[in-house]
Amino acid sequence: MQVTFLGTSAGVPTRSRNVAGVALRLPQRAEIWLFDCGEGTQHQLLKTDLKISHITRIFITHMHGDHIFGLMGLLATAGMSGHAQRVDLYGPPGLERYVRDTARHSETHFSQSVDVHPIESGMVFEDDRFSVRCRPLDHRVPSFGYCVIEKDSPGHFNVEKAAEMGIPSGPLYGKLKRSERVILPDGREVSGEEFCGPTIRGRRIVYCTDTIYCENAVKLAQNADLLIHEATFARQDEELARQSLHSTTVMAARVAQEARVKKLVLTHFSPRYEGGSTMRINDLLGEARSIFPPTEMAHDLMRIEVARHNGKDAVG
Amino acid sequence: MQVTFLGTSAGVPTRSRNVAGVALRLPQRAEIWLFDCGEGTQHQLLKTDLKISHITRIFITHMHGDHIFGLMGLLATAGMSGHAQRVDLYGPPGLERYVRDTARHSETHFSQSVDVHPIESGMVFEDDRFSVRCRPLDHRVPSFGYCVIEKDSPGHFNVEKAAEMGIPSGPLYGKLKRSERVILPDGREVSGEEFCGPTIRGRRIVYCTDTIYCENAVKLAQNADLLIHEATFARQDEELARQSLHSTTVMAARVAQEARVKKLVLTHFSPRYEGGSTMRINDLLGEARSIFPPTEMAHDLMRIEVARHNGKDAVG
Repeated sequence: MQVTFLGTSAGVPTRSRNVAGVALRLPQRAEIWLFDCGEGTQHQLLKTDLKISHITRIFITHMHGDHIFGLMGLLATAGMSGHAQRVDLYGPPGLERYVRDTARHSETHFSQSVDVHPIESGMVFEDDRFSVRCRPLDHRVPSFGYCVIEKDSPGHFNVEKAAEMGIPSGPLYGKLKRSERVILPDGREVSGEEFCGPTIRGRRIVYCTDTIYCENAVKLAQNADLLIHEATFARQDEELARQSLHSTTVMAARVAQEARVKKLVLTHFSPRYEGGSTMRINDLLGEARSIFPPTEMAHDLMRIEVARHNGKDAVG
Repeated sequence: MQVTFLGTSAGVPTRSRNVAGVALRLPQRAEIWLFDCGEGTQHQLLKTDLKISHITRIFITHMHGDHIFGLMGLLATAGMSGHAQRVDLYGPPGLERYVRDTARHSETHFSQSVDVHPIESGMVFEDDRFSVRCRPLDHRVPSFGYCVIEKDSPGHFNVEKAAEMGIPSGPLYGKLKRSERVILPDGREVSGEEFCGPTIRGRRIVYCTDTIYCENAVKLAQNADLLIHEATFARQDEELARQSLHSTTVMAARVAQEARVKKLVLTHFSPRYEGGSTMRINDLLGEARSIFPPTEMAHDLMRIEVARHNGKDAVG
């Protein structure tokens, strides 16, 4: 699973950072999911190898402009590209009305089907390989964190051992792969577990923004392979964070630590640290690492591979 | 007066062209007017020396997304910059509702005053130095062309001649500058016209998009110093232009020719000419020049100075 940061600035774009947007490329599918869609998200996608026509689902955290003002333009472009058959949108209850009103005012007629799903805490989406859950966070407007959960899959099937034991390939292999007990044509009874490695645990990627430190973020992020958490402010600006219900670097790191995630990536930085502030944006990283060492800072177009793993730590 | 093209693509952004937006810097004022505001207009401004906080008026031609989806983000950013006291928006009747609904859905609270003025054919704005007029064009939705008219100003006042004739400086000079007749303290009567050069004609800049060829564009553009006209399609794609009510290069050139403008700049090019089409985007220029030689093609961040003139051609 591949994560691409399309925007890493809070509130307004800067010369080097766009407003919020994260793309998730799913494994073994020509399918991309977006998380938030600030103005200019489609422009950022043009700088990558990600195709707008491959976007099938868009998950919106909350209704502030820096997270949604790129949505309608992206949907219009996706429609014109002529490939997308359908896009599913997930977000707070106000999202449906926003999309409907904006489409009406701008006379945007989607050529693809656009379905909006209002979310509340719990399961948002599920298919045979993935589920997505959300939990409310703590911000000035209703805001939700998302957890993408890849389902566990059977361990490696030892074909060589099956062949050595003279088990004929075909439907029997399928049963053994699913760890079932099987009676062979010659009467022997074998268990699939003899041929299968340990179950491969699915990956978990969690996206929490905008929010101040909250218990729900910790619960949502439990044991995640990757936690993407906002860190609008430096430690010294905690008072600003409390006023605006955003996180400091320290708050984000505490969520990561308490949730025992494998890796934390900070994003959604206040533009104040790019300008004349005595605190510079790269100083934020040190603050978080002093609490949670496996932390990185996102920058626009940064890409992270989240590898499958099996017991051992394989987050790339 | 300085024109900066912020976006020159039709419908969707490409790697090198953003969607519609033109900035006009007024002379002798720290004031910028915008014409259209497609998604990413504020991002384009970050690449120039134009300050978002200097934008005082935004003129919208029509309500299609590629001309308005950057408006709300730009207004939000302008508000956060803390400088703009007030922004006036002009556009079709639907604009007010769009701004109000989007602000409500996204909980955008402008810190500056944002006033929306629905337009119809005629005078849109006037102050002591400029007026702006509009006329309806011919597109799939109500669309307006704008003409910015700088007022004529008195010719150069010959101070040396006045001094030689022993006329005392002060209020009398003001009257002479306004070409009035004046009785001097010593009883002599003089006419201001003796001291003033010919009236300096104000500049005219006209912006016509989106539209197919129409009489109103010709009327609006009469004798303009600069006509910015859409040219979505090449000559060979006239049928597409007629279906979608856009212009070909030939139509735009005809408007320029019939309106006797000094200079034509084409913009709003279909992305089809950037891709695999046999017709390339630079071929469009030749088509227009064969009809109206003083034609240029806009590209993003292109800047044009429209100089004052006095009889002689001084368009830069």
